[in-house]
Amino acid sequence: MKTVLVYSGGMDSTTLLYKLLAEGDTVLCLSFDYGQRHKKELLAARKICKKLKDAGEKVTHEIVDIKAIKGLMGGSSLTSKVAVPKGHYEDKNMKSTVVPNRNMVFLSLAIAAAVSRKFNRVAIAVHSGDHAIYPDCRPEFIKKMRAVSLVANYEKIDVYAPFLNISKAKIAKVGTKLGVPVEDTWTCYNGLKKPCEKCGACVEREEALKRC
Amino acid sequence: MKTVLVYSGGMDSTTLLYKLLAEGDTVLCLSFDYGQRHKKELLAARKICKKLKDAGEKVTHEIVDIKAIKGLMGGSSLTSKVAVPKGHYEDKNMKSTVVPNRNMVFLSLAIAAAVSRKFNRVAIAVHSGDHAIYPDCRPEFIKKMRAVSLVANYEKIDVYAPFLNISKAKIAKVGTKLGVPVEDTWTCYNGLKKPCEKCGACVEREEALKRC
Repeated sequence: MKTVLVYSGGMDSTTLLYKLLAEGDTVLCLSFDYGQRHKKELLAARKICKKLKDAGEKVTHEIVDIKAIKGLMGGSSLTSKVAVPKGHYEDKNMKSTVVPNRNMVFLSLAIAAAVSRKFNRVAIAVHSGDHAIYPDCRPEFIKKMRAVSLVANYEKIDVYAPFLNISKAKIAKVGTKLGVPVEDTWTCYNGLKKPCEKCGACVEREEALKRC
Repeated sequence: MKTVLVYSGGMDSTTLLYKLLAEGDTVLCLSFDYGQRHKKELLAARKICKKLKDAGEKVTHEIVDIKAIKGLMGGSSLTSKVAVPKGHYEDKNMKSTVVPNRNMVFLSLAIAAAVSRKFNRVAIAVHSGDHAIYPDCRPEFIKKMRAVSLVANYEKIDVYAPFLNISKAKIAKVGTKLGVPVEDTWTCYNGLKKPCEKCGACVEREEALKRC
């Protein structure tokens, strides 16, 4: 199988990358530079892919520059000067971290890449912990994206989201088994020198790692 | 109603723009610079919107630069050095003019803009003449895009495609009634000084105008 992975450089998508490679896939990782304040994740993504490639794995990595469309996806605390809220994804104030239509934009570009590079499917590491706050991580969104992806081109590109109904703690467990270098991944929304340990992304990651 | 229109500057989307304005909509026109050889259509789009705005119509126009993702949507004669084929959309050789996942990419960005600018819906001028060669202009694609658009964000953004099942000749008739300045629109795939009159886009346009 040849898979285009929407790849952030975080714990979830890195675990999915390791899972795909363990299953024998050839993987094209696409990381998107959309003007996010935590651009540091792109460096993490590059480093992890380089290590894997150097170790002989069938992986390539591309950073896709879509900064020019930042104005279309504006209004989120991840792409503007609004402060990133602290707490859990379930908290109401977390809504400011939603980026307009982000996963549809990412998946539509990944599907375009799959068609033009002759890959079979696209993959994304959404999981059950994302459902509370992010509409574009929910089962109904993934189901409908898969439906439209199968008719949008002559090539029927599948949308693969194997973590859709499992928790981040379960992903951490899978990652441990697969040897994912958690220390190389980047999750924090604030993109400072070190993780802030207070934003939703940091809090969820820490809890998942404690539980696994 | 506030509508984000996927706007090429061609005859079909210009007629849709006029229709939306006639129905009282506020319209944000998005034209995409995706590295197409017929970039001239962007100038046509700008000129038409400027004239309408100067006449007091509720229209704004933005050219969205997505040239950086040309590599993801490659392989088409519209974005590469492959010659543009001559003839009708029904002809087999016309397949080289298909751009990978183009309308899903355009619509996903238009939906993002609708969410962030607080618009209600997106519109696209696909029509029955497009169905033969372009999968992302067919009713099943539009139906499924609408379905995913309604669940992808907190805001339910509708996908409006009123020309979906009518011919280009019928669009030309609608355009005549609405006073569309056909001479200002640009359709030709070849983007030379004058329309080539031989590519699929020119041939279909000429036939439609003759029939109306």
